[in-house]
Amino acid sequence: MEFPRFMEILDFIGTFAFAISGIRLASAKRFDLFGAYVVGVVTAIGGGTLRDLMLGVTPIWMTNPMYLICSGIALFWVIIFGKRLIHQQNTFFIFDTIGLALFTVVGAEKALAMGFPLWVAVVMGTITGAAGGVFRDVFINEIPLIFRKEIYALACIIGGLCYGLFDWMGVDQMITQCVSGFSVFLVRVLAVKYHLCLPILKGEDDE
Amino acid sequence: MEFPRFMEILDFIGTFAFAISGIRLASAKRFDLFGAYVVGVVTAIGGGTLRDLMLGVTPIWMTNPMYLICSGIALFWVIIFGKRLIHQQNTFFIFDTIGLALFTVVGAEKALAMGFPLWVAVVMGTITGAAGGVFRDVFINEIPLIFRKEIYALACIIGGLCYGLFDWMGVDQMITQCVSGFSVFLVRVLAVKYHLCLPILKGEDDE
Amino acid sequence: MEFPRFMEILDFIGTFAFAISGIRLASAKRFDLFGAYVVGVVTAIGGGTLRDLMLGVTPIWMTNPMYLICSGIALFWVIIFGKRLIHQQNTFFIFDTIGLALFTVVGAEKALAMGFPLWVAVVMGTITGAAGGVFRDVFINEIPLIFRKEIYALACIIGGLCYGLFDWMGVDQMITQCVSGFSVFLVRVLAVKYHLCLPILKGEDDE
Repeated sequence: MEFPRFMEILDFIGTFAFAISGIRLASAKRFDLFGAYVVGVVTAIGGGTLRDLMLGVTPIWMTNPMYLICSGIALFWVIIFGKRLIHQQNTFFIFDTIGLALFTVVGAEKALAMGFPLWVAVVMGTITGAAGGVFRDVFINEIPLIFRKEIYALACIIGGLCYGLFDWMGVDQMITQCVSGFSVFLVRVLAVKYHLCLPILKGEDDE
Repeated sequence: MEFPRFMEILDFIGTFAFAISGIRLASAKRFDLFGAYVVGVVTAIGGGTLRDLMLGVTPIWMTNPMYLICSGIALFWVIIFGKRLIHQQNTFFIFDTIGLALFTVVGAEKALAMGFPLWVAVVMGTITGAAGGVFRDVFINEIPLIFRKEIYALACIIGGLCYGLFDWMGVDQMITQCVSGFSVFLVRVLAVKYHLCLPILKGEDDE
Repeated sequence: MEFPRFMEILDFIGTFAFAISGIRLASAKRFDLFGAYVVGVVTAIGGGTLRDLMLGVTPIWMTNPMYLICSGIALFWVIIFGKRLIHQQNTFFIFDTIGLALFTVVGAEKALAMGFPLWVAVVMGTITGAAGGVFRDVFINEIPLIFRKEIYALACIIGGLCYGLFDWMGVDQMITQCVSGFSVFLVRVLAVKYHLCLPILKGEDDE
């Protein structure tokens, strides 16, 4: 039973990092404690909840109090560390990327396990990883960041495709999980390191 | 059968007050009649709908036309009274708080009746009471009010906890409903009367 | 089997036109390719997805890859034609209106087939036709257009009522579909041609 526990630790780390990102952005907009907590929770579990609603199963956070508790710890973390969070930037980038990788794998896996085809699994992996950040940005009244900057959702798509490919080839599930999770991680880290981004779609008014 | 009818009247009052709040904010943004009606409906039933989707049951408004009709009456009310609504401010505050209390109790009760644990019931009560206002603010393109001002959702949380406590102690359901509803009402009224609010989460740029 | 194929062609045209409208607005806000694609997809399938979640069935786009592929074609169309899209304005208005008509009919039909009453079917038709555009506007951080300008959702409501009326009178399903779809089309075209719009709800601050 070593492996599930390892997954649980990654899940906690990812949830924590996602919640921190929501709470920090909410605090920059002067939300109160409750508002900041809600934005943190929505960032952490919004993607998984939307996925579960579409798959027709009970949202993950309703089956395990860990997600709400973990977001609460994230709130205290931001209260305690405040300005010093800026020095934890790199750590949180790594944590956030671990969350992205894990959430993508979990989302794709869940869809495949329910008998949906690969392309649905890829979308579900991407929704699990990236939709929470979209909800966060809607709540703080900003245009969703992932639609404009950096390669983020693309990492989920590539990870989902890896998962599907390995699963189709009959590779062992644990290896499939690790490789596809690692591919999400790698794409995201390389994109940030080399400032890679997708081309902007040229507007009709542009010269 | 006296009690259900009483609950129905409270439900109507709450729906009406929630719809009025949505329609007034929409009119301030110069929405047309249809847009104002939709914002009213979403404010009134958005919380219950999100709760029902998460619980996996048919959204409440699809089982009873009362909610859409009641929102329609609210639209006519705003058209007829227009500027004079300002003099009905206190009445609407009481109505809105009745709605908040009732929706919280109904939400928590529904989750418990479906076998979910207390903490899910508290969240469901809060979503039922407060999520409609969040959707309203997203539609009128403002940062949700309840994340920044006043104690609103906290009243739902306290009411949900009361419900769970009394339910756990085996108190009669009707008393449990009344006490937890009243606790929501009391917290909200006291918060507004004494201008209580939650502390703002200090942003990282603040001095 | 002539008729289903005809419906499928209309469905493709409608999805394409809805996706184009989302992608063009996203490009005006300088979204990247992925962001523009997501906004296109959400505009095209958001209404149907919300309807299916409320009806408790698997969202339509998860059962057929056509919707995601069609949105991808729309993305390439916008990339290739760019500024020249402005000359295709009238074509896209017709396509968009075909989509609105078809989506309304499909949505109302699905709700009636599942045994819901007429008024639920009318709402479901309207949600199928109009909610995608609301999600689009939330994502690009604008107040939803259909709440402020032009008669759009009203066309869906009228179409839904036609559907219910003909269905109730026992008229053949294919005729019912055509007449109600055509009524949506007609209302929308007349509204745009004669610049008809719903009255603005007068705000409380207005003189």
